[in-house]
Amino acid sequence: MAMKHLSRDLDQLRKSLLDLGGRVELAFRDATAALVERDAERARKVVRGEREIDLSEVRLEEECLKILALHQPVAGDLRFVITVLKVNNDLERMGDAAESIAARALQLIALAPVTVPPDLMPMIQSARGMTRKALECLVLSDVALAREVLRDDAMVDDSQVRMFTNLQQRMRELPDQIGQCVLLLSATRQIERVADLATNIAEDVIFLHEGEIVRHKRSNLRAVPT
Amino acid sequence: MAMKHLSRDLDQLRKSLLDLGGRVELAFRDATAALVERDAERARKVVRGEREIDLSEVRLEEECLKILALHQPVAGDLRFVITVLKVNNDLERMGDAAESIAARALQLIALAPVTVPPDLMPMIQSARGMTRKALECLVLSDVALAREVLRDDAMVDDSQVRMFTNLQQRMRELPDQIGQCVLLLSATRQIERVADLATNIAEDVIFLHEGEIVRHKRSNLRAVPT
Repeated sequence: MAMKHLSRDLDQLRKSLLDLGGRVELAFRDATAALVERDAERARKVVRGEREIDLSEVRLEEECLKILALHQPVAGDLRFVITVLKVNNDLERMGDAAESIAARALQLIALAPVTVPPDLMPMIQSARGMTRKALECLVLSDVALAREVLRDDAMVDDSQVRMFTNLQQRMRELPDQIGQCVLLLSATRQIERVADLATNIAEDVIFLHEGEIVRHKRSNLRAVPT
Repeated sequence: MAMKHLSRDLDQLRKSLLDLGGRVELAFRDATAALVERDAERARKVVRGEREIDLSEVRLEEECLKILALHQPVAGDLRFVITVLKVNNDLERMGDAAESIAARALQLIALAPVTVPPDLMPMIQSARGMTRKALECLVLSDVALAREVLRDDAMVDDSQVRMFTNLQQRMRELPDQIGQCVLLLSATRQIERVADLATNIAEDVIFLHEGEIVRHKRSNLRAVPT
């Protein structure tokens, strides 16, 4: 009987996690679209939605603690609940990043429009794909998909290096665009952060299923200041 | 008997956490000193030490999982172990930030020296104090000290706003210093991140002892791009 309740509660936990993940994914999509399309209304939508994401994170953590206290799960179930605790934290940080991007979008909209670096859109597309795959690999227990996320992260990092060079050069050539360039650099960094957090989730999925610790194998020493 | 083992394992966990915390605190101190004093050797020491911090984080997580699986702690003990899991994660991210600051220091040392903004050193001092207090409040269960960390964070944020304005202005006036300014902006952001992570830890300590969720009460919408 207790077992049955545990599996029911774990199903509910999975649903709550997906619900939070869906909100965060949407917030990131809206924030990046607002950035590229100078869409203030969409940026404000992200800012308004952040409170709900924060509340969902708190509730999900409470759900995990309740399951641990009530059912005292062991082995795979225990590892799953701990993974949810960690992913929950990563998702909330993704939500924070989305909110920061939306705030940068609003600040950019208040300034004169400038050409967006050519790498921005592909970088956004990669990061969006990574957030989707990170959630999918967790829910579907798909380790191959998790490894794909790790590979995608290298692409995002490359885009960032090029964007950084591009924007720094532009600051030198067009000093009246320094304000916009600093905001674009900041937004880029937050996009890269979202990709990193998706990578964290994928690493946790690999660890959950294979016991292999893949995190810390990548270097934190990026070629460009982030 | 089982109880006795649990309390012995929790003591060991506390020690491991303090050990990791000490390493991270030292890495941050070294990285920021390397930045201000252009000390390449000290920056390289931080980069070399990062691997040990990563390994300690992995071991600490395993210790937590072992305690959960073996003793199935409840109530306060359960919350404590979960808090350690979260703090462990925050400390590792602090270590990452210290490594980033060290990397920026090395890049700066390779460029012509520039005047450091007047707010940098006080900001570093505040952030160093916060990391120390965050560990202390956790180990001593000192909620008043935890609340002090939350107050300090506001000061760090103010310093960052001023540094940001200062550096952006300098980029306009002295375009040949754009490279250095971008690196200093990046280092500033990482210092601010360390202060934020110390704040996370303090918030978790408050939650552990008072059940009050103080996180998410602060706004993520900073006045400056970060």
